[in-house]
Amino acid sequence: MTVPGDPPAAKPRRDSAATRRRLLAAATDEFAARGIAGARVDRIASSAQANKRLIYDYFGDKDGLFDAVLNAHMEQIIGAVPMHATDLSAYAGELFDYMVGHPDLLRLVTWARLEGRLGPVAEARSLQSYRRRLAAIEDAQRDGHVTARLTPPQILVLIESIAVGWIVTASEFLSLSDDDASDHNALREIIVDSVRRLTTSA
Amino acid sequence: MTVPGDPPAAKPRRDSAATRRRLLAAATDEFAARGIAGARVDRIASSAQANKRLIYDYFGDKDGLFDAVLNAHMEQIIGAVPMHATDLSAYAGELFDYMVGHPDLLRLVTWARLEGRLGPVAEARSLQSYRRRLAAIEDAQRDGHVTARLTPPQILVLIESIAVGWIVTASEFLSLSDDDASDHNALREIIVDSVRRLTTSA
Repeated sequence: MTVPGDPPAAKPRRDSAATRRRLLAAATDEFAARGIAGARVDRIASSAQANKRLIYDYFGDKDGLFDAVLNAHMEQIIGAVPMHATDLSAYAGELFDYMVGHPDLLRLVTWARLEGRLGPVAEARSLQSYRRRLAAIEDAQRDGHVTARLTPPQILVLIESIAVGWIVTASEFLSLSDDDASDHNALREIIVDSVRRLTTSA
Repeated sequence: MTVPGDPPAAKPRRDSAATRRRLLAAATDEFAARGIAGARVDRIASSAQANKRLIYDYFGDKDGLFDAVLNAHMEQIIGAVPMHATDLSAYAGELFDYMVGHPDLLRLVTWARLEGRLGPVAEARSLQSYRRRLAAIEDAQRDGHVTARLTPPQILVLIESIAVGWIVTASEFLSLSDDDASDHNALREIIVDSVRRLTTSA
């Protein structure tokens, strides 16, 4: 919708792509901080220096904007940490690093899960990536790099729990206490070593 | 505040305790489903068949009601799964069972973490329980039941990640796929066995 006199919409098409990007960036911050129910479209528009109506034009509504943000980030998460099935402990370490370095992404996915907006697109993408990783583990088992004691889905659940699960269970204490577990490097070593112990073929 | 003609407040004190309990139960459902920002005080009052003003009288505001719900449940979580430091794999299995059996509690805690309402009371309670569990692990290490390769905080982070982390990483797939990881019993066995392998003294 073009509104005469409305600066963002009246500019050439190249600028509308830039506005879209600014809206997505502002929406990422707002949704990561407050979730879907807590996010305010006004605040997103103002922080993106864009007209609020453009959000409705580009994304339909607040839910549509969240889906656009989530899909953009799912793409990024899935591509960011490639699996080395012949060295699953290194994969666990890289998964840990990625999560430590991108707390907002994890918050977005957690809000999406809680608010029931892990939509079909995101799920289909995750499932596709999940199946690729299962196949890679199966190959590594066949070649004797990975234990045959566990099935590929079991191995994947275990690796991801160990690499990411501390976020759910211990994050309060990681900031509260001064002991070893609060040290990210020490935690990384334990994660890598535990995955090695559990997945290497005996 | 007593309002003449307002049925719940006009009844004897015993009934006001019952109303408080009904409000807490309705609030648990509402907050677990929608979080703090998404919860509606109107809906909680109507589902508890109570006057909305009583929520403000008893709990101050929506945040205060959430804190009351969370504190009641933190008490329950902390008491529900006692740690056996001499058999940490059994503890991991019981932690897993508890989380599977109480999905709403985990949702409440996750909302609280995301929305920044894991208040000082809940944190102090968790920290107290955490320190008790560390001391129990230290004793079990001294008696040779538990590996000395890891510190007590490292052992606790690892156990909780393995027992609970699958909720963050795999829950989409646990409902999407028909493979082994979707079977709670199989997952429980892997969790117990992994904790045994990682924590038993060599």
